[in-house]
Amino acid sequence: MSIDWNGVTHVTKVDPAEELPSDLALLDRTDLVIVGGSDDVTEENTLAVLERLRSAHPELPLFQEPYSASHVSSATVEAVDALSVPAVYNGDRDNFVSKHVEFFTEIARKPDEAFGAGLPVVGEYVRSKGREAVADLAEKVLGEAYVVQNLDSEAAAESGVDAAYTPEQVAGAALATESFYGFEVFYVEYSGTYGGPEDVEAAATHLDDTVLLYGGGIRTQEQTEEILDAGADAVVVGDVFHEDPDAYLRTVPE
Amino acid sequence: MSIDWNGVTHVTKVDPAEELPSDLALLDRTDLVIVGGSDDVTEENTLAVLERLRSAHPELPLFQEPYSASHVSSATVEAVDALSVPAVYNGDRDNFVSKHVEFFTEIARKPDEAFGAGLPVVGEYVRSKGREAVADLAEKVLGEAYVVQNLDSEAAAESGVDAAYTPEQVAGAALATESFYGFEVFYVEYSGTYGGPEDVEAAATHLDDTVLLYGGGIRTQEQTEEILDAGADAVVVGDVFHEDPDAYLRTVPE
Repeated sequence: MSIDWNGVTHVTKVDPAEELPSDLALLDRTDLVIVGGSDDVTEENTLAVLERLRSAHPELPLFQEPYSASHVSSATVEAVDALSVPAVYNGDRDNFVSKHVEFFTEIARKPDEAFGAGLPVVGEYVRSKGREAVADLAEKVLGEAYVVQNLDSEAAAESGVDAAYTPEQVAGAALATESFYGFEVFYVEYSGTYGGPEDVEAAATHLDDTVLLYGGGIRTQEQTEEILDAGADAVVVGDVFHEDPDAYLRTVPE
Repeated sequence: MSIDWNGVTHVTKVDPAEELPSDLALLDRTDLVIVGGSDDVTEENTLAVLERLRSAHPELPLFQEPYSASHVSSATVEAVDALSVPAVYNGDRDNFVSKHVEFFTEIARKPDEAFGAGLPVVGEYVRSKGREAVADLAEKVLGEAYVVQNLDSEAAAESGVDAAYTPEQVAGAALATESFYGFEVFYVEYSGTYGGPEDVEAAATHLDDTVLLYGGGIRTQEQTEEILDAGADAVVVGDVFHEDPDAYLRTVPE
């Protein structure tokens, strides 16, 4: 699936296991919301958050980024514009290729066989909708090429990352994304810590059709500007949305 | 890079370390030639074959499929329409992601630093051509998603394949290619042995934008027809081109 990235400079990442701010008008100036997380995330709390967000901001593009197939159901798929699935360049084999082939093998199965141990909910979705659901579901999938740069983060642990990339390797992974793998998004992820503009600059040189996102530790307007000036299409702001509404509002570019 | 696949139903794979048939008019009815191999292949014999083919058939699309970066030079890149680079789904991590990131890291380097140990020839190419060469080279790269199904083949050994995919997994890999990875080609490779139509049928169900190639053991018109009827865009014929010109001609679809 393809969305219109024009004008998307600020993305909010919402963890369904965390409290939402009471006033969702906070999201008036963000351009896209990605819902996903690992600890304590379920299909139920994901769906609840998706529905609250959709109801508060019907026009805002909404993604689900599932950490586990058990977070995906026919209801979550229908609630979102895209199912964004990370492939982690510096992760283990599972997180770049194996689990994606398993995922697509599961959804490619005939509906009446679609009860794989790995992805029962997706299987149930395909079964409930019949054959055309495979195409619909595949159509909503959006590939995100990640480089996970904070080794102490949960994201690194989840995806089997044991070494950060040098800026040269970030450039290589960006060029590989643009020229070889066709992921729609290249994502520099510093998860919880501010990584500065260096990796973004390295990646931006090689990206043209690919959207460049940066996430990690953004808490100020200056950081947002620094990352956008370095060539990112958008910053992704997560923790501060849940923790500090005033700081969150300052991360929106002027 | 993107080529026009309309009307491409027969592809010839030429091993530069093998003798070419004396009469290259044999190639009059093939639609595309891919040059590449492993044993005894060098940049020199690759280039010599590319030049003979180009001179005999100036209009025939010509790919180089390098098994090693040392087979690539500025001269080979200039001689071809595309540099086709395999990613092997059921291969080891090296053959799906690591060596591609290394490859693109190398070509993304600044020209005067582009003498990596891994890819000196590509480095030399980039250096000799300057910065714009990176974009040119990247532009010519065409990603091929392989499933290597003959475990006794050299292709399996080269790419670290230790298990063939079931038809269900082939379907999953095809859907992953179409929906997630953006490779231009999905390639069912039986390398030296005829695999029949089953995997091709499984893959074809899920491919729309992606070109579906089948290679392996094709020696008769009936086999070609069986594979095309199963949904392949084209058959790839290799061994028999070098070994048995009459049989080769019979593999061209009517």
